Amino acid sequence: MQLSSQLILDLEQAIQNHQIEEIKRLITQVNRADLADLLANLTLDKQLKLIEYLPHAAYVFEFLSLTEQLEIALRLPKVQLVQLITEMHSDDSTDLFKTLPLKLQHDVYAQLTTEKQKQIKQLAQYAEESAGAIMSSDFVMLSSDLTMTEAIVQLRLQAADRETLYLIYIVDHDLKLLGVVSLREIILADPHQILGEMMTTDLVVGYVDEDQESIAQKLSHYDFIALPIIDAEQHLLGIVTYDDAMDIAQEEMTEDFLKSSAVSSAPNFSLKTAPILFLYKKRVFWLVILVFGSLLSGIGIAHFEDIIAANIVLVFFLPLLVGSGGNAGSQSATLMVRALAMGDVQLKDWLQLIGRESLVALCLGGTMACAVSILGYFRGDAMVALVLALSMMGIVLLGCLIGMSLPFILNRLKLDPASASAPLVTSICDATGVIVYLFIASIFLGQVAA
Amino acid sequence: MQLSSQLILDLEQAIQNHQIEEIKRLITQVNRADLADLLANLTLDKQLKLIEYLPHAAYVFEFLSLTEQLEIALRLPKVQLVQLITEMHSDDSTDLFKTLPLKLQHDVYAQLTTEKQKQIKQLAQYAEESAGAIMSSDFVMLSSDLTMTEAIVQLRLQAADRETLYLIYIVDHDLKLLGVVSLREIILADPHQILGEMMTTDLVVGYVDEDQESIAQKLSHYDFIALPIIDAEQHLLGIVTYDDAMDIAQEEMTEDFLKSSAVSSAPNFSLKTAPILFLYKKRVFWLVILVFGSLLSGIGIAHFEDIIAANIVLVFFLPLLVGSGGNAGSQSATLMVRALAMGDVQLKDWLQLIGRESLVALCLGGTMACAVSILGYFRGDAMVALVLALSMMGIVLLGCLIGMSLPFILNRLKLDPASASAPLVTSICDATGVIVYLFIASIFLGQVAA
Repeated sequence: MQLSSQLILDLEQAIQNHQIEEIKRLITQVNRADLADLLANLTLDKQLKLIEYLPHAAYVFEFLSLTEQLEIALRLPKVQLVQLITEMHSDDSTDLFKTLPLKLQHDVYAQLTTEKQKQIKQLAQYAEESAGAIMSSDFVMLSSDLTMTEAIVQLRLQAADRETLYLIYIVDHDLKLLGVVSLREIILADPHQILGEMMTTDLVVGYVDEDQESIAQKLSHYDFIALPIIDAEQHLLGIVTYDDAMDIAQEEMTEDFLKSSAVSSAPNFSLKTAPILFLYKKRVFWLVILVFGSLLSGIGIAHFEDIIAANIVLVFFLPLLVGSGGNAGSQSATLMVRALAMGDVQLKDWLQLIGRESLVALCLGGTMACAVSILGYFRGDAMVALVLALSMMGIVLLGCLIGMSLPFILNRLKLDPASASAPLVTSICDATGVIVYLFIASIFLGQVAA
Repeated sequence: MQLSSQLILDLEQAIQNHQIEEIKRLITQVNRADLADLLANLTLDKQLKLIEYLPHAAYVFEFLSLTEQLEIALRLPKVQLVQLITEMHSDDSTDLFKTLPLKLQHDVYAQLTTEKQKQIKQLAQYAEESAGAIMSSDFVMLSSDLTMTEAIVQLRLQAADRETLYLIYIVDHDLKLLGVVSLREIILADPHQILGEMMTTDLVVGYVDEDQESIAQKLSHYDFIALPIIDAEQHLLGIVTYDDAMDIAQEEMTEDFLKSSAVSSAPNFSLKTAPILFLYKKRVFWLVILVFGSLLSGIGIAHFEDIIAANIVLVFFLPLLVGSGGNAGSQSATLMVRALAMGDVQLKDWLQLIGRESLVALCLGGTMACAVSILGYFRGDAMVALVLALSMMGIVLLGCLIGMSLPFILNRLKLDPASASAPLVTSICDATGVIVYLFIASIFLGQVAA
């Protein structure tokens, strides 16, 4: 039973057959996220019709991605677009407004109410990815001298277009934040109690210029439904809700994930519909950069040409040794990037982690050295086996240390540690691996060849 | 202003100095997540003291990780542990109970109330990572014939230990789920209205045996505060709340992230404290598997030994060409793994995506071919430049197609597409690249050498 699916099929049917009464009846029963999915897949004239019949079209509209919103917005008659933007919550309407073409922005802006104009103007000023840019100004604000009963009356008056009623912010006459009361507490309290007496004053807040990732982490750490956003003078400016935090967390992890294989950061695109040139641009930068890493390996090989020519068996093991270093290094880098992103480790832990990583690397390198020296003994001789074992130990150890250190160094340089991608680490480890392997080989096998 | 930090410092001070009255006063003002952080860092006797004074110790305790909970639980006097487990929400208490040593489980279980025994027994039966294993049975359930006023009275009676009051589930006499009403709707409704008349019946639900990842996706898609969990007969068994969804989403993305560089899945460990052997085990499996990929490259090189010997310049470009294929392939694989995980693409989109990927690959390969052929011309001659350009095109194209297809094939085989890690793709592309490069070289340069 997905109770909603049958209703959606019925509604689609009704729209197909222009059964207006049936449409109106069904609309009230389908939830907004499903209505939004349905809306996104209709043709223009049907979209217009559905938006017209929807009792709170704007709240359905908000469930669409910004790209989908824009697509519909550009095709809507201007008067309907103005109405939609007026009705939308402040954060979503500002986001949509900012993506409209400049000419349309001017036309729409002129037709908005003064209040909405002010709201959009205020929210549009904050830097991308800051708390200000994602916060909503649709929160409930009450004064601290109200009783519970009065608070509920006020709630009913303010409620209609607020993002949440479940956290109520208490402010002074200057709109400075004093405390917070949850609706749960209001329901459970004695009706004559005063808000100011029971509000929580141990506040966790976000700042208007704080990074959105940090806001999302606070919401997730404290399990709050919403976080109040204030300025340096403690004025309450907005709230960020738990659903925004989920979207942000997903966006940020997607970015890190793509960076982990050297794709430049690009949140919110579809692999199915993104333009070819867009995908090309996101990938070509790092591919070209990585060429230089590979060139180093080439130079390393060229330098040891003689020892290779004299011991051709070395070439057979080259990809194996060099590859293992890169693989172990990638693992280390990913573990470190993740730990840094989750706040598990800080810069000051570096020495301790290097020590632990060395132990892990010695275990891994030891295992691999055993395996590869057996292979080497059968394909070459005991001396080859020794060279392979020593090289493997050295390469895996170096690979792990490079992989672990690179995100730290990037962090230290105020760069994104997630840029320490598997391909980048691999290409650095490859070059190092070639040199270590052939250097060790030239020490142990050099005399034999000479 | 992080209002809470000063309070926490004061509280730490008071605990140090055994100022009992001050501790009791401060405790009520600090929020639970911060109290939990503080609790985790105290010595045993101070932990016991703080737990003793905390008015709702169990709700603070729930904010600790399971490892931290277990550590404290093992050191608590049994009577305090029983009290703590009794007071904790059903989902958290079951998780903790399940991690206790068997002997302690028996002792604790015997001292629990019959109701709590039943709760733990019921919740403990569900498979790991299923909705049943993460759901809570502390939800508010009302019958459909209550008025709004009666509903609020009932809410006040049931409220104390419920995870959320904000979604109220309406059930029939058989406890089958009929609908849902939000506290927001109750506050805004006419006090004489009947719950059954205004409840939403277009329900989105989770099934008790459904995968936790799918539950988290539903919560995030619909922006719900909680999702009701039912069995096949529609009996309401529990709820999963938004904060659980956030934790699950983070856990699942961490797993994918680690897999992307060939670290076996292992949610919730700290890089700083995990045992060395644990980290070794998580990494050695894939490192050894990947050896076989590298061996293929070695065999490829050995096969074309003559052509290499005759044209030693080829070796210089080997890491560059082969590496570029691996890098481009890793990018494709990561993009595809992400798109599959987010539901952006399905199996049926495969052909379309291959077409699009080929176009992107041709653009990338073209760019790289230009670059490498210039290098080749200066280090070798026009013929070498041609070989390099053709090889680069072929290798990048093949790399992208392998990277894109591998997650699809794994998905098709009902394996986790995230196992198509960068190192795995790289090692497959390396072997392919060696063969393509040296094959093309042997065609164009073979005669010259002969």
